[in-house]
Amino acid sequence: MRIKVIMPITSDVFDEEIRREFRSYAGPGVEFDVQHLDYGPASIESEYDEALAVPDILNKVQKAAEEGFDGVIIDCFGDPGVKAAREVVDIPVCGGFEPAMLLAAGLGQHLGIVTVLPNVVPMIEDLAKKLGLMSKLVSIRYVNIPVLDLGDRTKLENALYQESLEAIIKDKAHVLILGCTGMMGMAKNLHDRLKGAGYDVPVIDPAFAAMKMVENYIAMGVKHSRLTYMVPPVKPRKWWDQK
Amino acid sequence: MRIKVIMPITSDVFDEEIRREFRSYAGPGVEFDVQHLDYGPASIESEYDEALAVPDILNKVQKAAEEGFDGVIIDCFGDPGVKAAREVVDIPVCGGFEPAMLLAAGLGQHLGIVTVLPNVVPMIEDLAKKLGLMSKLVSIRYVNIPVLDLGDRTKLENALYQESLEAIIKDKAHVLILGCTGMMGMAKNLHDRLKGAGYDVPVIDPAFAAMKMVENYIAMGVKHSRLTYMVPPVKPRKWWDQK
Amino acid sequence: MRIKVIMPITSDVFDEEIRREFRSYAGPGVEFDVQHLDYGPASIESEYDEALAVPDILNKVQKAAEEGFDGVIIDCFGDPGVKAAREVVDIPVCGGFEPAMLLAAGLGQHLGIVTVLPNVVPMIEDLAKKLGLMSKLVSIRYVNIPVLDLGDRTKLENALYQESLEAIIKDKAHVLILGCTGMMGMAKNLHDRLKGAGYDVPVIDPAFAAMKMVENYIAMGVKHSRLTYMVPPVKPRKWWDQK
Amino acid sequence: MRIKVIMPITSDVFDEEIRREFRSYAGPGVEFDVQHLDYGPASIESEYDEALAVPDILNKVQKAAEEGFDGVIIDCFGDPGVKAAREVVDIPVCGGFEPAMLLAAGLGQHLGIVTVLPNVVPMIEDLAKKLGLMSKLVSIRYVNIPVLDLGDRTKLENALYQESLEAIIKDKAHVLILGCTGMMGMAKNLHDRLKGAGYDVPVIDPAFAAMKMVENYIAMGVKHSRLTYMVPPVKPRKWWDQK
Amino acid sequence: MRIKVIMPITSDVFDEEIRREFRSYAGPGVEFDVQHLDYGPASIESEYDEALAVPDILNKVQKAAEEGFDGVIIDCFGDPGVKAAREVVDIPVCGGFEPAMLLAAGLGQHLGIVTVLPNVVPMIEDLAKKLGLMSKLVSIRYVNIPVLDLGDRTKLENALYQESLEAIIKDKAHVLILGCTGMMGMAKNLHDRLKGAGYDVPVIDPAFAAMKMVENYIAMGVKHSRLTYMVPPVKPRKWWDQK
Amino acid sequence: MRIKVIMPITSDVFDEEIRREFRSYAGPGVEFDVQHLDYGPASIESEYDEALAVPDILNKVQKAAEEGFDGVIIDCFGDPGVKAAREVVDIPVCGGFEPAMLLAAGLGQHLGIVTVLPNVVPMIEDLAKKLGLMSKLVSIRYVNIPVLDLGDRTKLENALYQESLEAIIKDKAHVLILGCTGMMGMAKNLHDRLKGAGYDVPVIDPAFAAMKMVENYIAMGVKHSRLTYMVPPVKPRKWWDQK
Repeated sequence: MRIKVIMPITSDVFDEEIRREFRSYAGPGVEFDVQHLDYGPASIESEYDEALAVPDILNKVQKAAEEGFDGVIIDCFGDPGVKAAREVVDIPVCGGFEPAMLLAAGLGQHLGIVTVLPNVVPMIEDLAKKLGLMSKLVSIRYVNIPVLDLGDRTKLENALYQESLEAIIKDKAHVLILGCTGMMGMAKNLHDRLKGAGYDVPVIDPAFAAMKMVENYIAMGVKHSRLTYMVPPVKPRKWWDQK
Repeated sequence: MRIKVIMPITSDVFDEEIRREFRSYAGPGVEFDVQHLDYGPASIESEYDEALAVPDILNKVQKAAEEGFDGVIIDCFGDPGVKAAREVVDIPVCGGFEPAMLLAAGLGQHLGIVTVLPNVVPMIEDLAKKLGLMSKLVSIRYVNIPVLDLGDRTKLENALYQESLEAIIKDKAHVLILGCTGMMGMAKNLHDRLKGAGYDVPVIDPAFAAMKMVENYIAMGVKHSRLTYMVPPVKPRKWWDQK
Repeated sequence: MRIKVIMPITSDVFDEEIRREFRSYAGPGVEFDVQHLDYGPASIESEYDEALAVPDILNKVQKAAEEGFDGVIIDCFGDPGVKAAREVVDIPVCGGFEPAMLLAAGLGQHLGIVTVLPNVVPMIEDLAKKLGLMSKLVSIRYVNIPVLDLGDRTKLENALYQESLEAIIKDKAHVLILGCTGMMGMAKNLHDRLKGAGYDVPVIDPAFAAMKMVENYIAMGVKHSRLTYMVPPVKPRKWWDQK
Repeated sequence: MRIKVIMPITSDVFDEEIRREFRSYAGPGVEFDVQHLDYGPASIESEYDEALAVPDILNKVQKAAEEGFDGVIIDCFGDPGVKAAREVVDIPVCGGFEPAMLLAAGLGQHLGIVTVLPNVVPMIEDLAKKLGLMSKLVSIRYVNIPVLDLGDRTKLENALYQESLEAIIKDKAHVLILGCTGMMGMAKNLHDRLKGAGYDVPVIDPAFAAMKMVENYIAMGVKHSRLTYMVPPVKPRKWWDQK
Repeated sequence: MRIKVIMPITSDVFDEEIRREFRSYAGPGVEFDVQHLDYGPASIESEYDEALAVPDILNKVQKAAEEGFDGVIIDCFGDPGVKAAREVVDIPVCGGFEPAMLLAAGLGQHLGIVTVLPNVVPMIEDLAKKLGLMSKLVSIRYVNIPVLDLGDRTKLENALYQESLEAIIKDKAHVLILGCTGMMGMAKNLHDRLKGAGYDVPVIDPAFAAMKMVENYIAMGVKHSRLTYMVPPVKPRKWWDQK
Repeated sequence: MRIKVIMPITSDVFDEEIRREFRSYAGPGVEFDVQHLDYGPASIESEYDEALAVPDILNKVQKAAEEGFDGVIIDCFGDPGVKAAREVVDIPVCGGFEPAMLLAAGLGQHLGIVTVLPNVVPMIEDLAKKLGLMSKLVSIRYVNIPVLDLGDRTKLENALYQESLEAIIKDKAHVLILGCTGMMGMAKNLHDRLKGAGYDVPVIDPAFAAMKMVENYIAMGVKHSRLTYMVPPVKPRKWWDQK
């Protein structure tokens, strides 16, 4: 199976790292291709950023379907454009949020998310309400590091560990979810440190979860329901580059 | 007070009618200006349409704030771009959904919405979940008429009446909401026919509700919370017309 | 439009102040009349007080309708008698709770109320459950000052500020609601102090909200649903002053 | 133990029948006294009626406590004045709703209520929301017979049976609750007819349930929490007969 | 009426004490018989323990029904086997959880449970979700004492008092429930200490509650709904002692 | 990876078929072993059956862990023993319900289940409440065919199709779940017939979902949280075959 990974940022500096990381996520026989955006914000950290990123995400998703990919990952925890994309293609499309929450929900009673900035906390709450899992989500915390500064891995590791401890002790989280796909590769270290402190809790990496969920749907031969995600009516849609 | 009304469609054919209708909604001393989009879909009837309309909506909202307007109405029942807009301006911004639901919630136990097409029903459910009023929303029905065909008022009136009767009798709706701002001017007729049939239920016009709610917030000197709608971080945002 | 403001207390000492305050709330062209009760408790701070206040509130509401008023405000945060009143008149009737909650719900994700005494906290919870907005209400705190001692404005201002800070920091409230109509005139000062401390959150004054909501309904030509608030059956109702 | 039964109606015509029926409800060693109101509506079938009945109910409850009764039943399905009464006395006080719902909740998955008139359906919904059991309440139906006409037992029996069948078959109720204390003595007949039709479901009589619940609390030596039902502050409360 | 009390432990050392305690719970004219298990775990403190205890509980329940008992108490807070038991007998069957929660729900706004070990907290949450009362349950705390060590009453009393104070002050519990039937006889002492500290809250003993609830159902002539608890289909069921 | 599939029935007649079917579910490189029970009911169609099946399920799960399997599937839609099993082993354990619901929740707004008999409907509701996804589950229907009669595939196919149509049209299900692992191999046919009728909805096979979910967890190197599923305390557990 062939999966398209769309990075909703406009820079290619992370393409290589993303490719390496996804290689470790992909199951046997899975091929994938990584692509960043041509237009949009440098990163998604607000409703505003998300709104600006989505049009080009949708272009890329439609192109992937035309090129014969079997599924698409929109590599962002905020699931930007996921619902719109499902309306316009007939292959499975996942972002990071839904797969991470669903896989986490099978592992314990209370879920906790540690994300990047306070700005995205209300967006995450809205996603949880829409998915119907708000009652399991007991904690949303943040490391207070912008997406594009996540490169300082030691700082990130420590901040994740501290916030995860708070999520467990104060908010009673039983399963942790990394709340940004830019935190990829951090799950194992965080799990090990928490286990060392006496808390044997699973840590879900949303990009890894996205890969598994898209693989699942392709393997099972299913895609999103057309009663939820209907094909948009035909009509003129005027766009900048149509000028 | 001066209010900007943004029509999230790319045609100007309705501008005059919108202007006339809003004139009847506006309270004493309220000035307003109607503006349609330069880019985007002909109408919003899907997640896909909404995604394509939002970038230019946000441009227009920001421009309205710069021009000194006191508030903004995004004249669509789907509240497209409302949350993103609140992040980037310091004046009240409302679409049609939130004001209609909130005004309706003060009038009776169970709410019912009659909208245009089945495509938007899941979007409306998501809006209700995000607003926290899903438990009061007992009915979402549709007249099965596309937005741009709402001009046949007799057909629309009859369809609205039939679906409203079903909402009341089968789904136990006590308050009705017109589920598209393109249904403006239909509330009174619908209320009268329903009352004639023995059902004295209020009917909420979402564009009217939007005008009242924006007026309320301006009069009270309040705007959206900056703890929910934080200012987006500064960063490059690459856009089509920046090519 | 003419609106009757019913003060559910038996003293006239606040009538002048109420009149002055409501003058600042009322929109252009709105006339109003303030009236206190002849029978009932000195103030409403318990279910017991509410039960004793309601019969004369209902008398006053019915008289207002007979006198041709266009709407009624029952000026108390507990919405005493509001549902019963709607059964017996055909004009909009609002207390302070519903309008404040509905206007606040359009401004942010999490609502917080700061009220007078611990006694009324369960009553406020019940009101929120009945309105269907309990899931958004993250904080109910109190200044621990009885209604009739709210005259010490400095003490009240400080207590409101302290409890509001706790509501924001500990309970994650994003929008604040003054939980007693006796706190009128305090919203702006509280908002300014909170903004000065870095929390730009709206503060809703329930009496102001009540005025706006009644104005809205009158302007829109709607009233409560007769499917929720049916006309009470005709029957003998024996009362003290009928002796 | 001695229990006071307060009938929230102003006529004594039912006193004898109530006494006979409660005799069959009361456990061994339970004495009780039946008392109707001096002031209030002829029956409770609306928010308005409830508001007018409550002041004298509260008088009677306080008098019962002073006379040394061990508990009080307010014999109405709408629980009129129950919360206020708990604030002012230190003995258990129950109406019909809470006991019926709580006993029913222990017997099956989905609850259904068959009450008298459509007018009280929203009141019952509010009671269920306040009690926290709305999610189990799948059906509220009515026989469309006013309280004071419930004397025609054959008509009532047939209407109860028909509506109960609908509640079971259409709404999937598993446990039935008689939604008016005036339906006393009908539970067994209804259960037998339903069982004969293949539906072995329990039927809860709310007056019977009230007696059991008050007996329970007295036997266990517990009463309502003073953190929910605080003692009302001391203050003047001006009343009709104080003129 | 005759009630069978099944102790889901394999030792008889507590039989005498249980008998004495239940004697004080039982109403006038109630006879009961106490029986422990032949097979199963020494105590129930996990899902695993519960799974191993249930088969012999079901044997004992069926035998009780055959012997003509009028009702059965499964004397454990976790309600082990209660739902399965109701499928196979036609007499009321209660554990400790449902009765305690239902009786507590009639006494105040927020419920708090103090149980034995952290292991059972998720089990209690699941029970509350199934019963539909999760929204009232604001606190689940534990004394961290295994069931079989509850014999040290002074230690238990102090731990219960400390955790109850936390439940009241930090979690806002208004009604307390002892979260293990092994805590029998502790409710009065705990209530008195809490009242002495200014918190007049009821404390529910789950075994006492179970006795009252089974008595209620027997007195009312009702049992569980056969639409929720259907008779299991006839089929071979192979068991160890059938070897 | 090596996965143990436990069939919670006591007959081996289906072992071969199960093996063939699971072969088609398993991903590349997955080995699995099928095992039925030695003790328990012939099939699980009630709480009673589940209670009797669980002890031997737990024996088999523990043995699988000792033998070095990487994960366990308990091949039943009711998730019998899943929670208890997670307490006693350190490898992922899944039944059919959780995986099917979680995979389905990622595909559409409203879920519908078609199961075997009415007896298990309340059990499924309880599972959904415990998982936290009750608000998405709009339909639970049944084909009224016992598990052991599912061999008549034509009858089953037709019944599934009819009930699925009702779930879609009457209950507004958007995603369908086969509510018994004995319905394996039916998903594709059902999907095709529904699509032919104009309803392009995904159909989830719970055994397929279980295989994918266990594969996911093994691939991701995670297992259930030890804060939800704690290790049971050490204690004597007396069992039949210990006689």
